[in-house]
Amino acid sequence: MLVEGRHFLPGAEPRALGHKALAVNLSDLAAMGAAPKWVLLAIGLPEADEHWLKAFAGGFFALAARYGVDLVGGDTTRAPQITISVTAMGEVPASVALYRAGARPGDDIWVSGELGGAALGLAHPEIAEAAKRLHEPEPRLELGERLRGMANAAIDVSDGLAGDLGHILERSRVGALVEYPLIPRNSFFRKINDPDLERDCVLSGGDDYELIFTAATARRGDLEGLSRELGLALTRIGSIQAGDARLTVLDGKGKPMKFKPAFDHFRK
Amino acid sequence: MLVEGRHFLPGAEPRALGHKALAVNLSDLAAMGAAPKWVLLAIGLPEADEHWLKAFAGGFFALAARYGVDLVGGDTTRAPQITISVTAMGEVPASVALYRAGARPGDDIWVSGELGGAALGLAHPEIAEAAKRLHEPEPRLELGERLRGMANAAIDVSDGLAGDLGHILERSRVGALVEYPLIPRNSFFRKINDPDLERDCVLSGGDDYELIFTAATARRGDLEGLSRELGLALTRIGSIQAGDARLTVLDGKGKPMKFKPAFDHFRK
Repeated sequence: MLVEGRHFLPGAEPRALGHKALAVNLSDLAAMGAAPKWVLLAIGLPEADEHWLKAFAGGFFALAARYGVDLVGGDTTRAPQITISVTAMGEVPASVALYRAGARPGDDIWVSGELGGAALGLAHPEIAEAAKRLHEPEPRLELGERLRGMANAAIDVSDGLAGDLGHILERSRVGALVEYPLIPRNSFFRKINDPDLERDCVLSGGDDYELIFTAATARRGDLEGLSRELGLALTRIGSIQAGDARLTVLDGKGKPMKFKPAFDHFRK
Repeated sequence: MLVEGRHFLPGAEPRALGHKALAVNLSDLAAMGAAPKWVLLAIGLPEADEHWLKAFAGGFFALAARYGVDLVGGDTTRAPQITISVTAMGEVPASVALYRAGARPGDDIWVSGELGGAALGLAHPEIAEAAKRLHEPEPRLELGERLRGMANAAIDVSDGLAGDLGHILERSRVGALVEYPLIPRNSFFRKINDPDLERDCVLSGGDDYELIFTAATARRGDLEGLSRELGLALTRIGSIQAGDARLTVLDGKGKPMKFKPAFDHFRK
């Protein structure tokens, strides 16, 4: 559920919003290795603004068409602020579906693409490339499907690396060691040279919609090949450890770093 | 999508709201003859109020359990007012699914239960029986499933008889003649003795979630038997006519009546 003033600013560009409303739901399917099939859209609006609706639908349906997803139901109503609820459905053979609970000690931890770009776009909207990451995320559906039978656990980065990897650790009852310098990040961070912002964006920034997944070390060659085939960076950033569901992040000198916890929608 | 201040009043009793949020979606499945299977719940709340959530969940899951419906996904977030979006899924063999487009000239028009009670409950909240119709509607799932292969078209009454029967007429490209005195209605209307309110509630009042359906005249005996079997009134209120998608309602003297059009969520 995306709520104006909370998940996006009043006056947000409607075409990008239509894209993002669907993309974040398809990303959940990607994280389970599912092929998207059907989608439902419930939308609350302060007024029936034809221009807005046309642009929103343009972004929504362009993405739906790209992945062969059919809109099969939904609802429209009036609401004090724009409110969008999307339900996406897909298919994956149960035996190869990816879950949060499958990580095993010794697994490598991988991440697709780059992290921190969307949070950087929120802090610095003037950086067009980062703003695009925030407003028009790309669901990693091809990757998700190809990870069937290859990854042991997966999740998409919606609330930030620390929080989302944390969900895998909790559900799999394992710990993790991540090397901060290995985490792939937007090249603009180098230009900005703000280490605190960079750490917050890379470790705790949400909305990137990349996939974090774990896989046995024997899969390294396969995954490097898959990365080349898809033209999508897949980077090893650490490993799963036996023990408590604790995430340890080491800086360039091998010292544990402090980082912000996951985003809590109901934090006061 | 149910929005506080629009579909329900601030301070609405959360247990009844949980029931209704699911009931109105199961009602859509009933109107297609589908057996409910899975449901997703997205909910936006101003604050994480445990008492409220517990009561809401109580109403929601009691109804879900009654029909063997599993909650399989959803979302929670913060929103300025309570906002609830439910997606319900069910199964029905394609060959016997009920649609709005199947009404044929000569069909009887039937309605289940009584109409106008929910709208009466809105106008007179002190009438407990009517208020219960408004706040705790009962989805007609058993009826919907039994109408497979028996009804030619069906819809549930969410926006009022005139509007919802109107959807059948538009999609089936037929007209309808309904006799106002035949429409089954809450017995409290007799005590209140307000003919204008009664007409508005019975013809144009929403939220009853009874089923309107059409069936060949040869089905009368079957449907009377089904009514007895289910212990649910099924009443013939008129017939489908060839011609324009126009609804004509006749009063007790055979004169056409005026009535309010369907509820428009975006009416100024």
